[in-house]
Amino acid sequence: VGRVHLGLLGSGVVGGGLIDLIAKNQALIGERCGLELIVQRALVRDLNRPRPMHVEYTTDAAKIINASDIDIVVEVMGGTTQAYEYIKTALQNGKHVVTANKALLAQRGNELFHLATQQDRCIGYEASVCAGLPVIGTLRQGLVGNDIESLYGIVNGTNNYILTQMAEQGTTLEQAIQEAQKLGFCEADPSMDIDGIDAAQKLVVLSELAFGMHVQLQDITIEGIRHLEQADLKQAASLGYVIKHIAIARKVDGRLDLRVGPMLLHKRHPLASVRNEFNAILVKADAVGEMILQGKGAGAMPTASAVLSDIVDVALRDAPVHLRKLVKAEHGASAEGRYYLRFPIVDEPGVIGEITTKIGREGISIYDARAVLEDESTDGNVMILTHKCSLVALNRAVQAMQDQLRKAPVVLQILERK
Amino acid sequence: VGRVHLGLLGSGVVGGGLIDLIAKNQALIGERCGLELIVQRALVRDLNRPRPMHVEYTTDAAKIINASDIDIVVEVMGGTTQAYEYIKTALQNGKHVVTANKALLAQRGNELFHLATQQDRCIGYEASVCAGLPVIGTLRQGLVGNDIESLYGIVNGTNNYILTQMAEQGTTLEQAIQEAQKLGFCEADPSMDIDGIDAAQKLVVLSELAFGMHVQLQDITIEGIRHLEQADLKQAASLGYVIKHIAIARKVDGRLDLRVGPMLLHKRHPLASVRNEFNAILVKADAVGEMILQGKGAGAMPTASAVLSDIVDVALRDAPVHLRKLVKAEHGASAEGRYYLRFPIVDEPGVIGEITTKIGREGISIYDARAVLEDESTDGNVMILTHKCSLVALNRAVQAMQDQLRKAPVVLQILERK
Repeated sequence: VGRVHLGLLGSGVVGGGLIDLIAKNQALIGERCGLELIVQRALVRDLNRPRPMHVEYTTDAAKIINASDIDIVVEVMGGTTQAYEYIKTALQNGKHVVTANKALLAQRGNELFHLATQQDRCIGYEASVCAGLPVIGTLRQGLVGNDIESLYGIVNGTNNYILTQMAEQGTTLEQAIQEAQKLGFCEADPSMDIDGIDAAQKLVVLSELAFGMHVQLQDITIEGIRHLEQADLKQAASLGYVIKHIAIARKVDGRLDLRVGPMLLHKRHPLASVRNEFNAILVKADAVGEMILQGKGAGAMPTASAVLSDIVDVALRDAPVHLRKLVKAEHGASAEGRYYLRFPIVDEPGVIGEITTKIGREGISIYDARAVLEDESTDGNVMILTHKCSLVALNRAVQAMQDQLRKAPVVLQILERK
Repeated sequence: VGRVHLGLLGSGVVGGGLIDLIAKNQALIGERCGLELIVQRALVRDLNRPRPMHVEYTTDAAKIINASDIDIVVEVMGGTTQAYEYIKTALQNGKHVVTANKALLAQRGNELFHLATQQDRCIGYEASVCAGLPVIGTLRQGLVGNDIESLYGIVNGTNNYILTQMAEQGTTLEQAIQEAQKLGFCEADPSMDIDGIDAAQKLVVLSELAFGMHVQLQDITIEGIRHLEQADLKQAASLGYVIKHIAIARKVDGRLDLRVGPMLLHKRHPLASVRNEFNAILVKADAVGEMILQGKGAGAMPTASAVLSDIVDVALRDAPVHLRKLVKAEHGASAEGRYYLRFPIVDEPGVIGEITTKIGREGISIYDARAVLEDESTDGNVMILTHKCSLVALNRAVQAMQDQLRKAPVVLQILERK
């Protein structure tokens, strides 16, 4: 306990937010935990931009990662190349590290955690997933005595904002993206979000922690939201569902089922009411039952809040947070569920009969099938809801009915309220 | 890190659950944090009841609180007299303490935390509020860098179950209580829950931690749910609201506003969808914004889960968790809001005019006033919704209109969706 000297790698939106937050709540933090946090030095690209005066700025990373007057290195620069080298060097030099970098952890987290353990140092990474929502702390600390069964998360605020706007305002995907960009919820290039990569990176970090198994991005079935149309949102609403972009990690008989993609949620499902840029994680665990964490999953101050909580945690422990040794994961747990399909059919007699026969041939029962109201904005014109079936069988059926479709179907899993 | 020897004070529902949970997830906990947790000894009243064999049982508390082979004393016996003495002695003997006892902490927490600091020991108390929901950890750790503005909580599962049943099944209060008792959600004597005492004790614990101010039970305005009738739940529903028993702690200009009681929540308010025995806490803080934690707030295994997380935390730190020094609180922050009133009036001409005049005289604007549909189950027959006003002024108006009422009115604050 006492003074803690921080070196920031990066001083952009999050780094600047952290400097402001420490300045604002310094006294409060001191009263709470007896620590004085001092931002000793911050790495920047351009020394000439105006910034708070009480911090020393440098363009030389060595002055942070090799400096004897820095206790904790805070990586808020992003990227996976330089950030990786800097964190590695900082750990080798005996610094604790706090990072907000999910992309780096998803790619090389295993290696960095291993190095940290060897060096008897900590890596705090609360800010890497869902910003200020303490999901990492809850999994690592609050649920430490629980066997975790599954995680269901709305972990990408951009996609949730876009889907909320499409559903509630009737906008197109493109309009909703522009609106999200205007509000700062979405990058100029929205691909990482809307193609599901960002959500999948978060799922790597969460599922390694929850299940103690090594997970890589390629272990996850990833779907984005680009292919969704107004027709799907309208159909979902008319059936009493909302469409959300969900990240799922489940342990089924020792194997992992890891998926990211849009799904239909019953309107009374606990995640269905999570709107706009908000994030939420539903954890099911043996002792605690179902638990939900909900809040803002992005933004300068929420992220700075999480970084700060890691800094205090690391400073108070000054000892490595023991990570469960990651074991090799068995992937490919069966994804079973009810599914929604929407697709345009070729205009020939008997086509619907052929399609339903092919679905039936895979042992899949149809719960509801209907023509979707014609709408100029969409090609879709047949919607099918299935009873519970395996995704493998459903994919075989879709494969078999290719000649009857004018376009690949939209396939969404249905999550009931239960 | 290594072996941790636990002494349990009490081996009832929670203590027994803890013994089972440690046995079940021992290997998992070891992998995660390198600890072997050993339940060394447990205090019981009756040695002859059948219990798991691998634990030593005793009827002599000294064998736990004075024993040199115990590292952490886990108090799960309840009550505020013996439990207080035992915890005090344990701390004096250099033991760390983990407790689930909100009643004791609400009454003498300040004294015990002070003693723990003197003795350089920890008191873990995650299980004292909302069982397995990590609210204490989130306030203490996840939000350590935040200035907390307010807490809104559904912290009593019994009341939430009763109100959900009354609203959704149309049952009376008495029927709902019986149903709750049958399901084990409610004690034989339901007073502590339905009179709001249990919720108020939890609010003491939460608000001391959130605001760093000393709070006592008598600082809280406490209302239960005994006076609610079907008429109120129906009225609320017809207006687009649900009635929930809410605990509020807000800091307004440095003063605290602490209240527990039933309130009207807009059906899209984030706490409105929390049903049955579930608990939830909405925290507003400067950096993180709005955050919600939701889950089971009671039960043997959820409580054992929280106790276990404290045991691991205490064992890994082996150093006191620094509590902010509590300062004297200024109470009596103004409670302002929109209100719902329902009351039976005396049957005389001009009475409604008199009532509305008296309300207007206090500067309170009426938003809606209507006769409630007659129903044999209720006396209520006039309902009034106000615009934003101070509770003090509203209470003065209610006082002034006593001669026009046949019974004290039901007064509920309205929480909008915002």
